[in-house]
Amino acid sequence: MLNTPRRSILMFLSLFAFCSQLQAAERPNILIIFTDDQGINDVGCYGSEIPTPHIDQLAKEGLLFRQYYSASAICTPSRFGILTGRNPTRSQDQLLGALMFMSDIDQNRGIQPGETTIADVLQQNGYQTALLGKWHLGHGTESFLPTAHGFDLFRGHTGGCIDYFTMTYGNIPDWYHNQRHVSENGYATDLITEEAEHFLKDQQTTDKPFFLFLSYNAPHFGKGWSPGDQSPVNIMQARGDDLKRVGTIKDKVRREFAAMTVSLDDGIGRVMSSLKNNGLDQNTLVIFMTDHGGDYVYGGNNQPFRGAKATLFEGGIRVPCIIRWPGKIKAGTETNEVAWALDLFPTICHFANVDPDGLTLDGKDISGLLTRQKPVGTRELYWQLGPHAELKRGRWSALRQGDWKYIQDAGGEEFLFDLKADPYEKQNLTQSQAAKLTELQERRDTLVKTLTPQVKSIAP
Amino acid sequence: MLNTPRRSILMFLSLFAFCSQLQAAERPNILIIFTDDQGINDVGCYGSEIPTPHIDQLAKEGLLFRQYYSASAICTPSRFGILTGRNPTRSQDQLLGALMFMSDIDQNRGIQPGETTIADVLQQNGYQTALLGKWHLGHGTESFLPTAHGFDLFRGHTGGCIDYFTMTYGNIPDWYHNQRHVSENGYATDLITEEAEHFLKDQQTTDKPFFLFLSYNAPHFGKGWSPGDQSPVNIMQARGDDLKRVGTIKDKVRREFAAMTVSLDDGIGRVMSSLKNNGLDQNTLVIFMTDHGGDYVYGGNNQPFRGAKATLFEGGIRVPCIIRWPGKIKAGTETNEVAWALDLFPTICHFANVDPDGLTLDGKDISGLLTRQKPVGTRELYWQLGPHAELKRGRWSALRQGDWKYIQDAGGEEFLFDLKADPYEKQNLTQSQAAKLTELQERRDTLVKTLTPQVKSIAP
Repeated sequence: MLNTPRRSILMFLSLFAFCSQLQAAERPNILIIFTDDQGINDVGCYGSEIPTPHIDQLAKEGLLFRQYYSASAICTPSRFGILTGRNPTRSQDQLLGALMFMSDIDQNRGIQPGETTIADVLQQNGYQTALLGKWHLGHGTESFLPTAHGFDLFRGHTGGCIDYFTMTYGNIPDWYHNQRHVSENGYATDLITEEAEHFLKDQQTTDKPFFLFLSYNAPHFGKGWSPGDQSPVNIMQARGDDLKRVGTIKDKVRREFAAMTVSLDDGIGRVMSSLKNNGLDQNTLVIFMTDHGGDYVYGGNNQPFRGAKATLFEGGIRVPCIIRWPGKIKAGTETNEVAWALDLFPTICHFANVDPDGLTLDGKDISGLLTRQKPVGTRELYWQLGPHAELKRGRWSALRQGDWKYIQDAGGEEFLFDLKADPYEKQNLTQSQAAKLTELQERRDTLVKTLTPQVKSIAP
Repeated sequence: MLNTPRRSILMFLSLFAFCSQLQAAERPNILIIFTDDQGINDVGCYGSEIPTPHIDQLAKEGLLFRQYYSASAICTPSRFGILTGRNPTRSQDQLLGALMFMSDIDQNRGIQPGETTIADVLQQNGYQTALLGKWHLGHGTESFLPTAHGFDLFRGHTGGCIDYFTMTYGNIPDWYHNQRHVSENGYATDLITEEAEHFLKDQQTTDKPFFLFLSYNAPHFGKGWSPGDQSPVNIMQARGDDLKRVGTIKDKVRREFAAMTVSLDDGIGRVMSSLKNNGLDQNTLVIFMTDHGGDYVYGGNNQPFRGAKATLFEGGIRVPCIIRWPGKIKAGTETNEVAWALDLFPTICHFANVDPDGLTLDGKDISGLLTRQKPVGTRELYWQLGPHAELKRGRWSALRQGDWKYIQDAGGEEFLFDLKADPYEKQNLTQSQAAKLTELQERRDTLVKTLTPQVKSIAP
């Protein structure tokens, strides 16, 4: 049963969709290719030594962002942000850290029924929706699963990572067909690719446009199981054949990360071929991005930016992003406009002819930037990370206003950077720019209070 | 430089070989297929649920042993025993536990220059010799490597286990081409198989007979590396495709073990095909056996026998063994004769027309059993395991005399079994058979003293 406010908004949106039926044929398919822990220097066309020809091809055919941000530097809130279009600080369940698969408390946490996702909106407006791959927004009950949050189809895992060969989290089965556990073996990246290929084949014979959230776990480390210790273990899970392809990379962990990345890139290539072969290519908006920065411990790289996953320096949140839509978005272009994951919700609504007026969204419709190179304008972006005892992580906040960036780290230390003059965050200006510091501190304090969970929605 | 006694014996043996040159054409090739931690119930034709059609085929074409023993219940001494033909208690370097790859002290231990291996003897008598796969008899210096112990060719790893995908032990490279480290990726089982295929192809065009010790690491667990913990980790490393083939096995670890076993069995199938395709099949003595019993923690199974790897109950040392030699050994036969790994040295010498008189060997020439079903007769077999602080293992000893078996475990507890009446070691007869107990205790005490290292050898 949907709760009343949510049902109301969906009824409203459905009504809107009905009114725009005549334009339905023009609504694009939406394919978000979302990768995991893949930093900005882990993509060939952003300068990585790792070959990613298929991602690079997207850049040749679309628009590449130079200043694109994820909603968070941590998996769960990043996913919350992209799917709800709202700052993760608004999540009803305080999803500001990583949901831990094996913690008792996290069995009862996740994305709440009152949240509205882009999948909910598109599903109610005639889209076929699917989430394939990693979810990480709850696993304890069916109410947290993707099928309760707007996805017609879910095939994938609920935990933050997976054993790439056994589809378990340590020794716990974690592969679903919708609400049902199934036993799968193979190689996770390939399984996700194959599910996408099947899904795209099925779309050939339907009149509905589709929304596919293709959420690869790669190149995130795998979650193996050590029988001797009777405990899960974080381990790189590259295949030997993929390792051979990146054999020139000397560091073992980086090489394994690279091997996991090239198989991911293969998958993206197969999915793009499938899109073309099924005649879906021309009217599909393809968005490639990653959930946040890479983790150096596990082979990721965010150079030349400072910091990494789970920090709010640029290396934690500035991510690769490429958007492609043949004939609509100019091929082989780049932009320095500041944009972020929260923009996708209103932008997709624009292209899908859905008016999300009833929802509190924290991003901007950047459709003008995509199709007409219209500047987005000066932005204010805010991030917050929650503490995490198990992972020994603390509370962070960061605010970007124009080119100014304020950060407070988990130890309470403050940073002020002028990103225009100092994109790599080397000069801390807290002393020399005391007035600006105070201004941004105050603004941060205001945002902490105003970014409240969305539990109400508009009347129809 | 060889030390003097060793050079003397090798000169003697070479002389002997020269005298038997006329018979050289009849000397068989020797292929020992040696697997790791594969218990008696991990082989299809011994009753396992794991399909091993290629090993089973060896049984259809050869002689299957029902009471065959390894030289030890631990990797390193088991290898010492099979290669030297001597009880591991005789090893100069006290190789009664597992050599640990990462311990400082074990950098300076291994099989000593004064030891004579079956590879030394065969090499000096005109055989082409190769060790492919796991060595585990020393790694710190070149003097410990296979090439210093009679093997013309070594391709494989020196540690007790390996990362099946990266050919490292944790993060330490451990793959050799003779004395040289090389970088290899792939799947360890396949790499070992491919090396064997190459070796056998090369043998097609040589007049020399060959001795190939094909020492698979499978289905032993893999030695991965956890980047987060910066430490090696024991982990099952099955491939997804292999897991699919054994998907009916419910227990995760057993399923992974089974998957690693089926790829091992594939490898054995490929090696046997290669033997046939290169015209080497008819005159090759093929010996399949395993280093000791399986480890239940890592998915192995020794049922219905008691105990496992690192114990001296039957489950630790009674291993599958099949010997095949077309036209010489009757196909599809079985034997209940008691035999063990130490018999291979004198038996191989017999078939290779080499007289090992100058060497102290602890096994029997069982060639008569193989080719003429001639009984071996009543046996006395003795095993001893050394303590191992890192693995929390203690000292064990066991003696089998006829059907009597005496065991003293690491805690000092004693057992006496009548294996004829009680093959699964359920009834401890120490109380009811006090005289027999005393007799075997005394014999054990004598053996401990008399089984000294062999450092001298005969004059020419």
